[in-house]
Amino acid sequence: MDERLRRDAEDILRESIRAVAPDEAVRRALGDFTPGAGQVVLVAAGKAAWPMARTAVELLGRVDRGIVITKYGHVPGEIPGVVCREAGHPVPDENGFAATREALDLTGDLGPEDRVVFLLSGGGSALFEASLLPGAELQDVTRQLLASGANIVEMNTVRKRLSGVKGGRFARHCAPAGVFAVVLSDVLGDPLDMIASGPACPDPTTCAQAAAVAEKYGLRLSARGQALLAQETPKVLDNVEVRITGSVRELCAAAAAVCARKGYRPLVLTDRLDCEAREAGRFLAAMARSREHDPEPAALLAGGETVVHVAGTGLGGRCQELVLGAAEGIRGMARCVISAFGSDGTDGPTDAAGGWVDGTTAERLEARGISVHEALRNNDAYHALDAVGGLWFTGPTGTNVNDLAMVLLGGDREG
Amino acid sequence: MDERLRRDAEDILRESIRAVAPDEAVRRALGDFTPGAGQVVLVAAGKAAWPMARTAVELLGRVDRGIVITKYGHVPGEIPGVVCREAGHPVPDENGFAATREALDLTGDLGPEDRVVFLLSGGGSALFEASLLPGAELQDVTRQLLASGANIVEMNTVRKRLSGVKGGRFARHCAPAGVFAVVLSDVLGDPLDMIASGPACPDPTTCAQAAAVAEKYGLRLSARGQALLAQETPKVLDNVEVRITGSVRELCAAAAAVCARKGYRPLVLTDRLDCEAREAGRFLAAMARSREHDPEPAALLAGGETVVHVAGTGLGGRCQELVLGAAEGIRGMARCVISAFGSDGTDGPTDAAGGWVDGTTAERLEARGISVHEALRNNDAYHALDAVGGLWFTGPTGTNVNDLAMVLLGGDREG
Repeated sequence: MDERLRRDAEDILRESIRAVAPDEAVRRALGDFTPGAGQVVLVAAGKAAWPMARTAVELLGRVDRGIVITKYGHVPGEIPGVVCREAGHPVPDENGFAATREALDLTGDLGPEDRVVFLLSGGGSALFEASLLPGAELQDVTRQLLASGANIVEMNTVRKRLSGVKGGRFARHCAPAGVFAVVLSDVLGDPLDMIASGPACPDPTTCAQAAAVAEKYGLRLSARGQALLAQETPKVLDNVEVRITGSVRELCAAAAAVCARKGYRPLVLTDRLDCEAREAGRFLAAMARSREHDPEPAALLAGGETVVHVAGTGLGGRCQELVLGAAEGIRGMARCVISAFGSDGTDGPTDAAGGWVDGTTAERLEARGISVHEALRNNDAYHALDAVGGLWFTGPTGTNVNDLAMVLLGGDREG
Repeated sequence: MDERLRRDAEDILRESIRAVAPDEAVRRALGDFTPGAGQVVLVAAGKAAWPMARTAVELLGRVDRGIVITKYGHVPGEIPGVVCREAGHPVPDENGFAATREALDLTGDLGPEDRVVFLLSGGGSALFEASLLPGAELQDVTRQLLASGANIVEMNTVRKRLSGVKGGRFARHCAPAGVFAVVLSDVLGDPLDMIASGPACPDPTTCAQAAAVAEKYGLRLSARGQALLAQETPKVLDNVEVRITGSVRELCAAAAAVCARKGYRPLVLTDRLDCEAREAGRFLAAMARSREHDPEPAALLAGGETVVHVAGTGLGGRCQELVLGAAEGIRGMARCVISAFGSDGTDGPTDAAGGWVDGTTAERLEARGISVHEALRNNDAYHALDAVGGLWFTGPTGTNVNDLAMVLLGGDREG
């Protein structure tokens, strides 16, 4: 076992998670914010709204007024100048609607010199909502769409038009004030208009498309609903500046920076990994093996969210399956660690954040009577890795920007 | 559909296969050969022995004497100065043993100024064999080993010691003449002693290991068999120079060179890909998608041999499943083609060499009522790709150095 490599892998894990934590992400993004001559109003919505808002207020010194809208139990204290509201997630409730109305009031009469700092994180879609339809009809339309087999893009094309804040409408509401939006992304590939249905993003979908969806699925709508579908969403927003942050892309970039600092030449393979976890592990192991005799230390990074098809009765998570899937492929290799972790600190239904293997893992498992093949067949990566000290534990990290898998190669100076 | 990219992908396929064809491979390798002052004897064994020998004789001008030992039906004509023998494969037969005795006679009394050009290709293990045991006992031992559950390394550890040519013994037989060996590899990662059990390669296994295998599996051996197991194989061979050629590594390198010539910056990811085919496709698609807006044309290359777990009743091959597995991941992407092919021109039990997909494939399939998901579920990639013109056809290529998968990115100059 190469203790130096293992320790480096763990450092990279901890430092890159820290770099994408909501507070750090806001800190980085707000470096670009220039206040106007007028007021600064803060609106933060989503599961990470509170830490994002606290950091923003800390950095800006003060805000003129502001509101946090987050999940129940996610407000640990007060923030000067900001009211904190808790509401329902993932199912929206009256508290969310009321809080969103408050946010619209706070931002309703701003001038061109005023600024809205808009902090959006996961869960924002349910927590930040102002329905233009009566609640019962909105629920009915949602049910019809879900039952129709419409895909997510089709559903959002309709739903954006039934909302007073989605599809760019919140930003238009704030105009002529400038909106500086910091979006903490947990959507692979960051399609801006998909994150919380894009309250501050020009809407690429059209009324014609919405009508086509309604016709395709025979949607039953009231006269008011039909009128809403015919109202166009903003196609251009010239008062918005957006920083996407805390995304898996940033996680990859942060990890790459830490790798470089530690002397490993980083290569980001992808930030949208989405294949079967154990096969991703085998692919990474094949890449590692091909580089076995490269003289220079290097790191291969793959961000995203793999999948696991559970067929067994064991315990594990996608990151644990990924690394266990790599164990045979790097068997016997010196100076190689393959590691993966979930940035939220929780990999599957386990208390581990992920795990790691090296060239000795397969053999050390065998010595304990554990077969890699059998552990994978039974989806029992947790117990296998636990038996050889191959799990990472971080506890909940307060962020969630997908997973990172990493091949760390120590370099073969004699190679 | 980007016709330019598709055509480039096809050119790269054809040119890289041509570069690793047995004749081209021998041509490249023999560039390093220096004859001595004495005779040149040629010994070629394996499925590609004939084209390799013909090219060698053409290049060297002449050889003093030589022998080709190949499969039945694999001698299409005469080669000056060389006798051509056909024999049994994959099951060795008397013709193979007789031809191998001839080869040993041709190389039996050479001096230090003489040279043996030894050309080895797939199938050499069966075609080039001189048993030190009576045929019946060798068959019995082989049967015992197969029934015992011994792995391939354990089997070879025993079998090398029962052979007059394997485990480096052919090279020792040629001494003091120098042996220039050209090995056409189709084994992932090129472990030299595994290719045809290494007639010209020092044997890393020991008599003690052979004895341990015999004991572990309760092998029944005659007194002669037991004595052979105790005879050490060569551990050092100072009269051998080896060129491994036509390997998947060379296929990757050849493809990378063609890509570079065509203006695509190549990156060889691995030459030992061995994971589930469709998941390799999804991994490559994720890499492509992450590079969607890279301005420069680029190529990602992965050589090796993926696997397919057949659960359906359709038609396909690993390369076809790989690219079909990538279709959804690059849906809608401009300027991207993902392609894969078997270097032997045959992908699975089909007449196609492989296939390709681009950003329009998933939609074109849907327009024909074909679901990617369903085609993969039924292992029916052939019919799906065939319906959208997504198959490559080359016919048999006469070489076999695994598969190559490739992502070709046209570059997004506006990105």
